[in-house]
Amino acid sequence: MSEGGRRPGHVMAAEMAEQPAVLARLVDRAADDLARVRSAVPSPLAGIMFVARGSSDNAAVFGRYLAELAAGRPAGLAAPSLYTRYHAAVDWHGYLVVALSQSGATPEILTTCQAVRAAGACVVGITNEPASPLADVVDMVLPTRAGPERAIPATKTVTAQFLLLATVAAALGGGGTDHGLAAVPGAVAAVLADPGPVDEAAGRWRDIDRLVVSGRGLAYPAALETALKVKEVTGILAEGISTADLRHGPIAAVYGGSPALLLDAGGPGSSDLAELRELIAGGSGRLDSTVTFAPAPGMPEPARAIASVVRGQQLAHSLARMRGTDPDTPTGLTKITQTT
Amino acid sequence: MSEGGRRPGHVMAAEMAEQPAVLARLVDRAADDLARVRSAVPSPLAGIMFVARGSSDNAAVFGRYLAELAAGRPAGLAAPSLYTRYHAAVDWHGYLVVALSQSGATPEILTTCQAVRAAGACVVGITNEPASPLADVVDMVLPTRAGPERAIPATKTVTAQFLLLATVAAALGGGGTDHGLAAVPGAVAAVLADPGPVDEAAGRWRDIDRLVVSGRGLAYPAALETALKVKEVTGILAEGISTADLRHGPIAAVYGGSPALLLDAGGPGSSDLAELRELIAGGSGRLDSTVTFAPAPGMPEPARAIASVVRGQQLAHSLARMRGTDPDTPTGLTKITQTT
Repeated sequence: MSEGGRRPGHVMAAEMAEQPAVLARLVDRAADDLARVRSAVPSPLAGIMFVARGSSDNAAVFGRYLAELAAGRPAGLAAPSLYTRYHAAVDWHGYLVVALSQSGATPEILTTCQAVRAAGACVVGITNEPASPLADVVDMVLPTRAGPERAIPATKTVTAQFLLLATVAAALGGGGTDHGLAAVPGAVAAVLADPGPVDEAAGRWRDIDRLVVSGRGLAYPAALETALKVKEVTGILAEGISTADLRHGPIAAVYGGSPALLLDAGGPGSSDLAELRELIAGGSGRLDSTVTFAPAPGMPEPARAIASVVRGQQLAHSLARMRGTDPDTPTGLTKITQTT
Repeated sequence: MSEGGRRPGHVMAAEMAEQPAVLARLVDRAADDLARVRSAVPSPLAGIMFVARGSSDNAAVFGRYLAELAAGRPAGLAAPSLYTRYHAAVDWHGYLVVALSQSGATPEILTTCQAVRAAGACVVGITNEPASPLADVVDMVLPTRAGPERAIPATKTVTAQFLLLATVAAALGGGGTDHGLAAVPGAVAAVLADPGPVDEAAGRWRDIDRLVVSGRGLAYPAALETALKVKEVTGILAEGISTADLRHGPIAAVYGGSPALLLDAGGPGSSDLAELRELIAGGSGRLDSTVTFAPAPGMPEPARAIASVVRGQQLAHSLARMRGTDPDTPTGLTKITQTT
């Protein structure tokens, strides 16, 4: 017990537990959000770009996959430093830009939004703070409405971003909200109700100082976010790597002894994970250091990917508690990162 | 000594040493390459996308920065799995796509090139094997002409890719080959002639099992490539992170004890590194585990970024030798990765 009887990690755990309700509210709002975004999409559409840092950037990777699939035009991730450091002069006409910032206050995100909007982009801002400075530099705000987030590691605002990005992607396609979004709150609730697989992995990994986290397709952004959450709350060097990239060299770190977490959200990338497990077993016999999470079986892939993000939150939280640190307030981190 | 009296790491070292000559040949060819690419750029240009994996993908990040700056249109990195796994139907008209593959034979790169070209993109292929299958699925090949690369870790083909991407970017801009390319062979030769800073760092880091490698702007792709090379030849879990992203959470791994390598290529991102060093010193007092490489001082930023890639090769090679492994043939890795 720490000061005032508060258990370490209590705030993060409480915010994680709010996720089914937060996500259900966004599902209820999805048709309205879709209509608002659809009315703003440039025509003809040259491309879609996402602007974000940290956890929001991992959500952006999820949005990038879904947006390119739905819009039928290329999507990618912006490089903010081109605008904050190199003062790039770029024509953004024809682009839909989606900027994500939980706080709506990261200086480099604001600067980048201003630059691309002044250069012709239509900018949608996704934030938990609709009254933040972000609102002044975008064409439209989609609020996550997750309520105040007090733990340093972002959890409920991140899964809310993932869900809103599926709605943005749906707006870029021809139909309605067809990404199986209605399944998300239930998939997340099921994961929260069943922490067993995570506690077992955390117990095994209590003393590690490095971890590879891998997935493909929609599980890849979940791997990135899981790695970031583990790094933030434990100080373990956890790297998120796509299953395909892992095979282009980084698998040497697994052969060299690094534990590996594989995230399987089903979908067409799922077969890569089985191949990878065979490769690890053949290459080093270290399959005993490899754990696979495949949450919410039978649900649509986007819901399983979001459920995988929650598995990652659970793992980070559980590891931190077992290592005797407080995941609510990781040493040296602050809620709003002032990168420029 | 291994079989036949060959010293471990001899092949990789010899190929690293060839780089000034390889790069000088490409500088000599730059004006011709520029003219060929310029004649193929779609007009109007919707955007630029890069398709690659592994070391080639790190070169692509370098190309992405320079291309957006020079072209004045957004640039990004493609997600091959959308084409190999999700069978995305995407309109690529108006896009210049640059595909990079040292071998020209990675199945997923070929599949992605076929898909985006059939959908309207103009595709430039950069490869060391101009007679490879890649040549059949692109509009134009820019060969790296680095000679056969026999060590598993790619070195001379990677810096050659970096240089060709600067030429592609120049073709997208209005002028000539104006990225200071002529300085590259000399900058690389200077780094190769002065391995001292690297041997000192490798001696200090002989027994580590994790490493953060960070840079910003054009030094960021050099950080990604350094991390990959260290992972490949040593099994150390080395993660490349942009200096801005590092501050959004991952710095907790440095506070938690992970050694950190900072790459400084000058340019407008350089001030971020000084800030980062202060933050690390203030957060944990672990500045004694932090090393900065700032090669080729006074040279143009692109040349310094490429010189930083070579510093990373030296570090990987030196670490492998000190740890008693052979960097020429890392356990379990092959020259052509058959990802699909």
